[in-house]
Amino acid sequence: MNNQTTRISGRPATLADLDLFKHVEEHLYTAVVSDSLDELGYRNQALREFMRPLSPNDCFAGWARTFSCVDMYHIPTEPYAMEIAALDSVLLGEVVIASTAGSMQNAPWGELLSTAAHVRGARGAVIDGLVRDVRKIQELGFPVFARGIKPVDSKGRGAIIDYNVPIECAGARVCPGDLIFADYDGVIAVPAEILPQVIQLATEKVAKENGSRAELLRGAYLKDVFAKYGVL
Amino acid sequence: MNNQTTRISGRPATLADLDLFKHVEEHLYTAVVSDSLDELGYRNQALREFMRPLSPNDCFAGWARTFSCVDMYHIPTEPYAMEIAALDSVLLGEVVIASTAGSMQNAPWGELLSTAAHVRGARGAVIDGLVRDVRKIQELGFPVFARGIKPVDSKGRGAIIDYNVPIECAGARVCPGDLIFADYDGVIAVPAEILPQVIQLATEKVAKENGSRAELLRGAYLKDVFAKYGVL
Amino acid sequence: MNNQTTRISGRPATLADLDLFKHVEEHLYTAVVSDSLDELGYRNQALREFMRPLSPNDCFAGWARTFSCVDMYHIPTEPYAMEIAALDSVLLGEVVIASTAGSMQNAPWGELLSTAAHVRGARGAVIDGLVRDVRKIQELGFPVFARGIKPVDSKGRGAIIDYNVPIECAGARVCPGDLIFADYDGVIAVPAEILPQVIQLATEKVAKENGSRAELLRGAYLKDVFAKYGVL
Amino acid sequence: MNNQTTRISGRPATLADLDLFKHVEEHLYTAVVSDSLDELGYRNQALREFMRPLSPNDCFAGWARTFSCVDMYHIPTEPYAMEIAALDSVLLGEVVIASTAGSMQNAPWGELLSTAAHVRGARGAVIDGLVRDVRKIQELGFPVFARGIKPVDSKGRGAIIDYNVPIECAGARVCPGDLIFADYDGVIAVPAEILPQVIQLATEKVAKENGSRAELLRGAYLKDVFAKYGVL
Amino acid sequence: MNNQTTRISGRPATLADLDLFKHVEEHLYTAVVSDSLDELGYRNQALREFMRPLSPNDCFAGWARTFSCVDMYHIPTEPYAMEIAALDSVLLGEVVIASTAGSMQNAPWGELLSTAAHVRGARGAVIDGLVRDVRKIQELGFPVFARGIKPVDSKGRGAIIDYNVPIECAGARVCPGDLIFADYDGVIAVPAEILPQVIQLATEKVAKENGSRAELLRGAYLKDVFAKYGVL
Amino acid sequence: MNNQTTRISGRPATLADLDLFKHVEEHLYTAVVSDSLDELGYRNQALREFMRPLSPNDCFAGWARTFSCVDMYHIPTEPYAMEIAALDSVLLGEVVIASTAGSMQNAPWGELLSTAAHVRGARGAVIDGLVRDVRKIQELGFPVFARGIKPVDSKGRGAIIDYNVPIECAGARVCPGDLIFADYDGVIAVPAEILPQVIQLATEKVAKENGSRAELLRGAYLKDVFAKYGVL
Repeated sequence: MNNQTTRISGRPATLADLDLFKHVEEHLYTAVVSDSLDELGYRNQALREFMRPLSPNDCFAGWARTFSCVDMYHIPTEPYAMEIAALDSVLLGEVVIASTAGSMQNAPWGELLSTAAHVRGARGAVIDGLVRDVRKIQELGFPVFARGIKPVDSKGRGAIIDYNVPIECAGARVCPGDLIFADYDGVIAVPAEILPQVIQLATEKVAKENGSRAELLRGAYLKDVFAKYGVL
Repeated sequence: MNNQTTRISGRPATLADLDLFKHVEEHLYTAVVSDSLDELGYRNQALREFMRPLSPNDCFAGWARTFSCVDMYHIPTEPYAMEIAALDSVLLGEVVIASTAGSMQNAPWGELLSTAAHVRGARGAVIDGLVRDVRKIQELGFPVFARGIKPVDSKGRGAIIDYNVPIECAGARVCPGDLIFADYDGVIAVPAEILPQVIQLATEKVAKENGSRAELLRGAYLKDVFAKYGVL
Repeated sequence: MNNQTTRISGRPATLADLDLFKHVEEHLYTAVVSDSLDELGYRNQALREFMRPLSPNDCFAGWARTFSCVDMYHIPTEPYAMEIAALDSVLLGEVVIASTAGSMQNAPWGELLSTAAHVRGARGAVIDGLVRDVRKIQELGFPVFARGIKPVDSKGRGAIIDYNVPIECAGARVCPGDLIFADYDGVIAVPAEILPQVIQLATEKVAKENGSRAELLRGAYLKDVFAKYGVL
Repeated sequence: MNNQTTRISGRPATLADLDLFKHVEEHLYTAVVSDSLDELGYRNQALREFMRPLSPNDCFAGWARTFSCVDMYHIPTEPYAMEIAALDSVLLGEVVIASTAGSMQNAPWGELLSTAAHVRGARGAVIDGLVRDVRKIQELGFPVFARGIKPVDSKGRGAIIDYNVPIECAGARVCPGDLIFADYDGVIAVPAEILPQVIQLATEKVAKENGSRAELLRGAYLKDVFAKYGVL
Repeated sequence: MNNQTTRISGRPATLADLDLFKHVEEHLYTAVVSDSLDELGYRNQALREFMRPLSPNDCFAGWARTFSCVDMYHIPTEPYAMEIAALDSVLLGEVVIASTAGSMQNAPWGELLSTAAHVRGARGAVIDGLVRDVRKIQELGFPVFARGIKPVDSKGRGAIIDYNVPIECAGARVCPGDLIFADYDGVIAVPAEILPQVIQLATEKVAKENGSRAELLRGAYLKDVFAKYGVL
Repeated sequence: MNNQTTRISGRPATLADLDLFKHVEEHLYTAVVSDSLDELGYRNQALREFMRPLSPNDCFAGWARTFSCVDMYHIPTEPYAMEIAALDSVLLGEVVIASTAGSMQNAPWGELLSTAAHVRGARGAVIDGLVRDVRKIQELGFPVFARGIKPVDSKGRGAIIDYNVPIECAGARVCPGDLIFADYDGVIAVPAEILPQVIQLATEKVAKENGSRAELLRGAYLKDVFAKYGVL
């Protein structure tokens, strides 16, 4: 693990990136991507089960733009300096993904930040913590996964202390530039260095699954399907 | 904190009260009310994130009618005496808000109590515990926020031991006569003594937010919006 | 408690069984069944509140086919041997009900097993753990109650080590052949030996409740309704 | 389960009772009593692992005198009425055993109540909650098992609402008059109706264990010891 | 609540301060101080029950020097800058009291920091998180209360991001300059503005308790002791 | 990660192994070994904070002999077959280290297994679960780390289903043959493939720490010590 990191600037998504995101969103799903990661020995890339979408059809893929939020118990001198810098630096094709160390006292995400991220070209947000303004976020159409909902502001409860650094989000390590993919089954982080293999393996696996599903629907026993396809 | 309390009888909501509830439900939202409470130094008025509505459009405001429920492990001689007294005393414009000390063994609220509260003129219920008969409560159209759902009865599992006394509900202190306001973001308790200021601050803040939202939607950076409006 | 058990083979549901399931699903509900079990002294038959349906209308009754899943941290030589045997042995009219000792690392149920159980004639599944492929399970129309959702596979994370043995599922003891009944309020296990009395008591209680509900809706006080009907 | 109970008056321990307590404390231990209860089909009589002694040598047996404590959030009119009645009714040879529904806000036991119970002839106390004045309780020599330690008073935080009724203490059901036995391994409740069989089985089992221990210490393999003694 | 704070420089303890600490440590105890705070309406000043001393005789009083620690998942450029500043600024008569937002991944305190704080004149440390080097800390004789023990370093796991600001430690709000008092019953924070009244009330209460204890030890009933002294 | 494993037979410790264990126990400590593992990029080798020694001086090093325990809710046909095989296969110089998936219902370790392991030459046991017979284990002098204490037997509550396979114990992955080292700060697992480097780094680091400690004790500021030694 390369633990020593400096802040990474990133670049806006290219047309090829946007095509990739579309392929992932429309043809793959997080479960098959998780299996492909398992096959390559990356077994802890899925975020924990408490990360749920605000709207049932929320689904997106994009490059991780990490935020590091922490709890606070007072209002510092410049409470928003880092938050403003973090949000304003979001680039086309990124997914805001925030660690809060599992905070249940603070709701570090709401309508305003959703709007700001949306107009910068972000594809969604993944907040390992609480959020608010959910109805307005749903109206905006910006997809967000979060741990829970509570109507409190972050002022005097927490702050963003860094961004574009490695974080832990809902049990998985996420580095800037990882591919974040979220659908109804949850959220998965694909490390940048193995992305091509993962996409290829997952695309192949989707095709294969159609065979076993069809046989099972015709009434075949698992024993025979497994003997034929070698997978379950 | 005035801890020494006697049972408070309350009075039915007046027409002015009902107008206030309508204003709160239609023009305010819990997040902006929470911010106004913060501004006045009341920072622990929002109930915890596990309090969720049984139906997604549940939204109500009203005076707190507190119930104190506790776990029991046997059936006392008069299991329903206090429960009947508590329910039958509910007045027009009240919100039943119940503490259970976070019980996960008992479901102290269901269709019958929803019906009884509804016909007495209650505007909703907030149960820091489990509920049952959810489908029938939804059909009745009575809005309820709860911690969870389980099909068990309260008989031999718990009892109401007092009502119209200060309680703690999902992490927030609630006194009889506080304004309880619940929408999709959660539930907030507004202490009676500061209600007018809170309503005024919240109403003003709603207006201001429209400005910053409009600018952000036009693509402005947070830095500039914050410089102009002074809030985030 | 008879703790010493051998594996029970069971038999497919008869037409009378299927009629019973239909009666339970259409005329009873878990809350009234729970009350009937309480009355007979069986007070811990409801599964805990975290067992929720994947689709809001999921509702089913059937004979318990228990699975015992455990966490693993490596891939054993024959990872699927017991899982295949367990699934392929599912019979018409059964409900797959799985213990995982509350695992949050493994998702032992998904589309493939739902399909396999569905074509064998299972009426639903109750998984005290995580599941995946939720969208596909919803499309299949197979009802499932679970503790949560995460996109990971069971390979190298857990295994089925036995089936048709007594288990503990979400806090309740379940034996093969118990009646499992699930509706929006949750899941309840009815021990086989008292099933007839429970069905009779519950059917009677449903009728009685209509009276008290009607009176309450006309504005009666709980005190008077309780004096007349003797129940709450 | 006999759920419908009235308050039970009890009687002071006889000389025979005191001899029994001495036999249990000096010749048995909770593990062997737990095994004997298992053998008779009573498998949930041991309190949970978080119940620990305040002093490492705390060990006692006596008749259960149950207290039911609940959380409160205000000071009622007569905060101590039931507490005084409960404590003053403690009889020679009893063990105070208190349910708090797992409260972590209140410390319902301390030096004063320890002293009062001690002079009434209580053999110890088991508090499923927090306690305070631990140093003074240790100096008094009164043995207490508890869930934790915190220096807060119960006034305005909780109250005793009943005594001599069935309770649940740290996961186990306890009825007035059960034998409570506590040693370094934890606390176990022996239902009164099976006490003679449990004492007999446990006394026999202690004798048998000496044989297998001796063989193991001489280097025998478990396989051979099990083949010879039929127990592990 | 004054939430807007700047860093407070403090001053070393005077001889009068040191006399006060000695009085508190030798003549008062946290339980009686907690009762005095209750009486003045400060009801949430005791830290939670999981804060335990590393050595059973750890007992100290001193002025709060707050540290704010947060979890991190990488090694920042200057990992120790704030930690060195915080430790080197500790003054005679202070108690280091650290918030970690309840971190279980990081052990932000050990022998080195204990030694540094000790030589600066600190009277003890209260760490709402994990610690290590416990044997060496015990040998040094520096008293520490903590949430738990784990042998990991803070490098790449967490960092001190601020000091001398208001924090929340184990459930209680602590401001720089509060009196922190820890004994075997736990830890309590006395706000500076009410310290004189608290000390006076607590000193008086200690005297009174001796009367009721003596009567109880002579066999008096609680009812009569309460009638005579008016307190329990 | 090599996930596919077959059961590993191991070999008894050699004299060189025993010398190594002695060096580790007498000259190193878990904190410095953890730091050395961190330096080599192995950052999750320390078991969680709830693993505590039964006796305060328990300290041992040895080769991991892993056991995999799971919860059960009935008594299988041969409840002890795998347990007997596992215990009887323990070799000189091994540490029994057991996963239970965090079970709180079962106490899979007690005096009998301690005795059996002790006579086979085991150096200690690390049980991620509950244990019983603690007094007798202490008298035997066999060092055990565990999650908690409860007097229940494993029969009908759990079973050993495999041994000498990779497990997860209290949050850390452990493979057969890893070096397990436990002292008062906790337990750490050193993967076999990096053991020599870890021992070397840790031995060097112990020497260096003496310098900075000595300077701090003389009153040096952290800033200067860090400038001189480059470590904290």
